[in-house]
Amino acid sequence: MSAQLQPRSAVTDALRQLLGERLSTSESVREQHGRDESYHAPALPDAVAFARSTEEVAAIVETCARHRTPVIAYGTGTSLEGHVQALHGGVCVDLSGMDEVLEVNSEDLDCRVQAGVTRKQLNTYLRDTGLFFPIDPGADASLGGMTSTRASGTNAVRYGTMRENVLGLTVVLADGRVIRTGGRARKSAAGYDLTRLFVGGEGTLGVITEIQLRLYGIPEAMSAAVCSFETLGGAVDTTILTIQSGIPVARIELLDEVMVGAINRHSGLDYPVQPTLFFEFHGSEAGVEEQARSVGDIASELGGGDFRWATRQEERSRLWQARHDAYYAALAMRPGAKGWPTDVCVPISRLAECILETRRDVDEAGLLAPIVGHVGDGNFHLSFIVDPDDAEEMGRAESVNERMVARAIDMGGTCTGEHGIGFGKIDFLRREHGEAVSVMRQVKQALDPAGIMNPGKIL
Amino acid sequence: MSAQLQPRSAVTDALRQLLGERLSTSESVREQHGRDESYHAPALPDAVAFARSTEEVAAIVETCARHRTPVIAYGTGTSLEGHVQALHGGVCVDLSGMDEVLEVNSEDLDCRVQAGVTRKQLNTYLRDTGLFFPIDPGADASLGGMTSTRASGTNAVRYGTMRENVLGLTVVLADGRVIRTGGRARKSAAGYDLTRLFVGGEGTLGVITEIQLRLYGIPEAMSAAVCSFETLGGAVDTTILTIQSGIPVARIELLDEVMVGAINRHSGLDYPVQPTLFFEFHGSEAGVEEQARSVGDIASELGGGDFRWATRQEERSRLWQARHDAYYAALAMRPGAKGWPTDVCVPISRLAECILETRRDVDEAGLLAPIVGHVGDGNFHLSFIVDPDDAEEMGRAESVNERMVARAIDMGGTCTGEHGIGFGKIDFLRREHGEAVSVMRQVKQALDPAGIMNPGKIL
Repeated sequence: MSAQLQPRSAVTDALRQLLGERLSTSESVREQHGRDESYHAPALPDAVAFARSTEEVAAIVETCARHRTPVIAYGTGTSLEGHVQALHGGVCVDLSGMDEVLEVNSEDLDCRVQAGVTRKQLNTYLRDTGLFFPIDPGADASLGGMTSTRASGTNAVRYGTMRENVLGLTVVLADGRVIRTGGRARKSAAGYDLTRLFVGGEGTLGVITEIQLRLYGIPEAMSAAVCSFETLGGAVDTTILTIQSGIPVARIELLDEVMVGAINRHSGLDYPVQPTLFFEFHGSEAGVEEQARSVGDIASELGGGDFRWATRQEERSRLWQARHDAYYAALAMRPGAKGWPTDVCVPISRLAECILETRRDVDEAGLLAPIVGHVGDGNFHLSFIVDPDDAEEMGRAESVNERMVARAIDMGGTCTGEHGIGFGKIDFLRREHGEAVSVMRQVKQALDPAGIMNPGKIL
Repeated sequence: MSAQLQPRSAVTDALRQLLGERLSTSESVREQHGRDESYHAPALPDAVAFARSTEEVAAIVETCARHRTPVIAYGTGTSLEGHVQALHGGVCVDLSGMDEVLEVNSEDLDCRVQAGVTRKQLNTYLRDTGLFFPIDPGADASLGGMTSTRASGTNAVRYGTMRENVLGLTVVLADGRVIRTGGRARKSAAGYDLTRLFVGGEGTLGVITEIQLRLYGIPEAMSAAVCSFETLGGAVDTTILTIQSGIPVARIELLDEVMVGAINRHSGLDYPVQPTLFFEFHGSEAGVEEQARSVGDIASELGGGDFRWATRQEERSRLWQARHDAYYAALAMRPGAKGWPTDVCVPISRLAECILETRRDVDEAGLLAPIVGHVGDGNFHLSFIVDPDDAEEMGRAESVNERMVARAIDMGGTCTGEHGIGFGKIDFLRREHGEAVSVMRQVKQALDPAGIMNPGKIL
């Protein structure tokens, strides 16, 4: 990649002409934009451009292209594998000001948003329409960032990930051209699926500025429940049987006992400190009851205790907020330490084995690393709570992470279910995809020959 | 594109060395492989290679690449936009001999098949497992062909299209390299979504030789029903309200009165010759009843008659076989004529308007062209029953088709919901996607610089 060929002052001057005050080179703004929520070392951009429209993003990228300067798209900075670090300097394009919901087509269950709209903002906007957008990574991320990292979350087992829920995109390409991919039709066989190429592209192929999204009607009935298990194996096996039985659960989330202790303290809850499943059921009144009964039968056969129900909206919100805050709860277990969340995803028949072996490995390595998981998809997370300055401890964590990823890949799984590659998992991508990585590189080369789009990520 | 630079005898000789009897240059074999089920003019390959393994396909493609000879992948020849026509000659790779189901992972609800396995063959193979594969274009197509055209069918409203149901692929690239994309995990954020790039690639980026597919448990209860309507508008509005209400119908298919008459005659049925919806409901016993009741209420408000139920397996099979044979039933309306099926897909709020305007246009043009549709997705088909030798009639059909596509695109829809582009809809692809088509061309150029993979299709 041949970025960084010109002194950066030229591009900064040109962008200042374009953006005025909305181009910042201040140390504090650059620092804020040079890191994400991971333990990965920050890397500061030379400047931060606060964009307000697709046309402006196109002009910024076009300017950067002329000066062969890296472009890093930035939403909320909540990525987990160093996605926004400016490894080769360059211009960070902050899209948080592009926060308009452009259209809601209630009858068609779709909407179009600017990339800076966050998932919570969208759902607040939709409040009176009877619709909602289900994808919910832990953070209140921007929909542009969620698209770029192919995010998912607790609802994916029922509603899919960003891959299934993006209908179309507006993208600024590496040379400043603007294209629209996909459309509003539910399905299309018209040409290459460029939409899915940019979903998960982590800003390395273009900057996403607008997103057409699927929406869903708020179900007639929703009910959540918490169930504690005698063993981690019992909780995982309950998940496996639930999925294999085709019960359309909306959410099925695992927390190991370490994590339950952490969220009890962090969110003022009093769940038994045991491996625990959080469930949510969506459907008609009768359908929700039927699902809950079926899952209850499975759980009680596998050492699960009684279901603790949360039916009222506030109770459910409190429960899921606690789940979403799990990462922060884990961090609070060791003040001053940093979190290093990592995730894998395996075929569900291998899930119990993968989680139990990983749990054993963590314990044997003497590390603090609670496990949570979107286990209905075979996806789970390990959050190392570590001191990044302690090289020996970091080495142990790295080894556990490597072994977990290798285990997942050997089981037919993937090195990341939803966090993405960033620069933290580049080696694992090669291990997982082999020769296919060279095809990814050919695509990258075709769309970004100068290598200016978020260089050093994915490939 | 720079294919066809060398005399074809050299490549034929080389392939005969490799394949012996399984390389055919006979007129009849070439004729059989130079056409699909559409009205598009045949175009014969120079030779047909009957491949038996991924390694063999790789050797064939590698040989063709050395000789700069076009490669056209062929499954069952049931495509509808001229996908298999050898527009620039070359070698047709017939994959129908690669018909092994390689693995079925019942616990994980997935399987791996060779590209020549057909959808019915797979479901027959799965018969004793309690699982099924739902995607069902009209023809008993090969799964490789269905992947390459991003096929869908009557179940897509509930189970998605090939886009949602392919987990991973084995692909032979234009230079003979073999890659595996995706994997068995339900979701992954690991790198570019190459799987979705080849799904719908129509063989222009590589030859798909193996497919990892999602499977589904056969629902506890299934029930089908037929309901006739006073007006086409009533039938379409029933569809729209059903989808907007979030009722998880498995199938909701529209037949206009012309088509009902045709299938009555072709399949020996006696449905009232009126606009008609075919429904299927999947779920628990209670769930199926609840869905049917809700849809019944909607239909009766909109001029629908009584539901005629088909609950037993044989009744349901007969009903859906009649639906799948609709195209052949339409052809039988005018002996000696050819069928020209075309499809579009629009946001569901525009469906009634799009169908009614199209119906009016067909009638005004004095054409025979029944309408059927996977209307739950906003997707419908027009099948012109025409005499291809009658230039004046063909001209009228072309005009109606053009107006229908323009109408669909103007409504936010797509020029094809499931048939693909082939060479029949290339102009419409440009109209729909504008500058994005140039990005598709860049991707094509990157993966197939010599332009040997199914040249003249999509782009």
